[in-house]
Amino acid sequence: MSGQGFESATLISAGYALTSEEIQQKGVKASEDVAQYALRLGDDALILSQRLSWWVSRAPELEEDIALGNVALDLLGHARVLLTYAGSAWDKSEDDLAYFREEEDFRSLHLVELPNGDFGQTIARQLIYSAYAFELYSRLAAESSDETLAAIAAKSAKEVDYHLDHAEQWYLRLGIGTEEANRRLQAGLDYVWPYVDELFEDEDLHDRLEGVAVRPSSLRDAVMARITDVVERSNLTLPTDPQAVTGGRRGEHREHLGYILAEMQVLARKHPGATW
Amino acid sequence: MSGQGFESATLISAGYALTSEEIQQKGVKASEDVAQYALRLGDDALILSQRLSWWVSRAPELEEDIALGNVALDLLGHARVLLTYAGSAWDKSEDDLAYFREEEDFRSLHLVELPNGDFGQTIARQLIYSAYAFELYSRLAAESSDETLAAIAAKSAKEVDYHLDHAEQWYLRLGIGTEEANRRLQAGLDYVWPYVDELFEDEDLHDRLEGVAVRPSSLRDAVMARITDVVERSNLTLPTDPQAVTGGRRGEHREHLGYILAEMQVLARKHPGATW
Repeated sequence: MSGQGFESATLISAGYALTSEEIQQKGVKASEDVAQYALRLGDDALILSQRLSWWVSRAPELEEDIALGNVALDLLGHARVLLTYAGSAWDKSEDDLAYFREEEDFRSLHLVELPNGDFGQTIARQLIYSAYAFELYSRLAAESSDETLAAIAAKSAKEVDYHLDHAEQWYLRLGIGTEEANRRLQAGLDYVWPYVDELFEDEDLHDRLEGVAVRPSSLRDAVMARITDVVERSNLTLPTDPQAVTGGRRGEHREHLGYILAEMQVLARKHPGATW
Repeated sequence: MSGQGFESATLISAGYALTSEEIQQKGVKASEDVAQYALRLGDDALILSQRLSWWVSRAPELEEDIALGNVALDLLGHARVLLTYAGSAWDKSEDDLAYFREEEDFRSLHLVELPNGDFGQTIARQLIYSAYAFELYSRLAAESSDETLAAIAAKSAKEVDYHLDHAEQWYLRLGIGTEEANRRLQAGLDYVWPYVDELFEDEDLHDRLEGVAVRPSSLRDAVMARITDVVERSNLTLPTDPQAVTGGRRGEHREHLGYILAEMQVLARKHPGATW
């Protein structure tokens, strides 16, 4: 079952060698800087996955239960490979990094830890993250001199492209739908907007990873153009004056992340090192 | 994108015509008895899917988060087509049936509404349901004179075969693993066992659907043989004296179902008829 390259995370089979195992098998070892970079992208995917998975039993339609569930599982797949790669620098497994780090060691964006709110708010966030991740992964796949990062990104970009399409369809459906649907999506967009600026914030890390990482600020124009286009076609208004909230990349999180981690980590921590 | 037959429920694409839409498009109409039968199978899949989806953010490993999440989404896919087909008899949609029925109108087995308990208990239940569903769907696919049921079952059988394999691997891993893991799985098996007999209970409905439905009692030998084999290879003990609890097919449920439905139905009920 191995040797098939990067398979979809949605392929399930007991004992199937997922991509994170392939990374382990290859024995690649990330440098400290590359690991820090992979950790950032992995944490974003992990935390948003946890957030979205809440919807699996609660979406407004069964079809949407499945759609959001699939998005959540895709993101978890991205998190697994990125955390596995990051962990290679420190002899840590994906599970070590997911379950046994403290809140201040998570490098996720504020955007992904925001409460789901109503369905409109979740979708508002989903377009922004998907537009960002699609541009980021596409650029990484095309430009990164790090083969492992480029390979992870190439697969992730394809899946995020679906997620972006999915979010865009919901923007149009809600935005051009009833007055109430438009109002809720607009309220969701207004709520998440102050957290958008953080996506494009450069760090010293990116200076050191020239040619390996994608500089966040270089993503801004393309991502904002994509979001603006969808927002306008959906009869919504792009919020102004972003009042940027940042710090996630430095481990400064709001109270939300603590609750997410508590839920995600409790079982693994209750039985550390357990052989399941 | 249509006309590709029964696609995997894990294929996501905005606006993609899922199988339940294909059933609608075909304009097939189930008889009252066939609808009641499809409702039973669909409710089993729906409720177990809701139960399993709880694990998506809480499994002991990231890999297992994804695996159980995929099982949950597969089951939700089965529920969607079965409820769509059932609903064709009453001009009801899958969402009507999932979100706007009362507890006493659900026809699910007690087994699927049981609390998840710890991971061992969830896996204990998962083997039983998967062995049952695999045998049931395989037989339906091969024997049913109802083309729609047979087609639904053929696709579902393939997915449930994976789920069965997944549960079996966990039985072996936990059963032959540490003493504590063996003890927990055995405790889970003991807990769910009184609810196994209900799976094989015939109703008048099955007399009327000779050649269309599979008679539950006719599944017992094959399902029990499969379960017994796995249990024995996993160093576990098959519980005796089942103390059968039944009534789910008559709408008699334990208190668990009410909580599951409350969570599942709240959003749809809050905005009945809303155009999302």
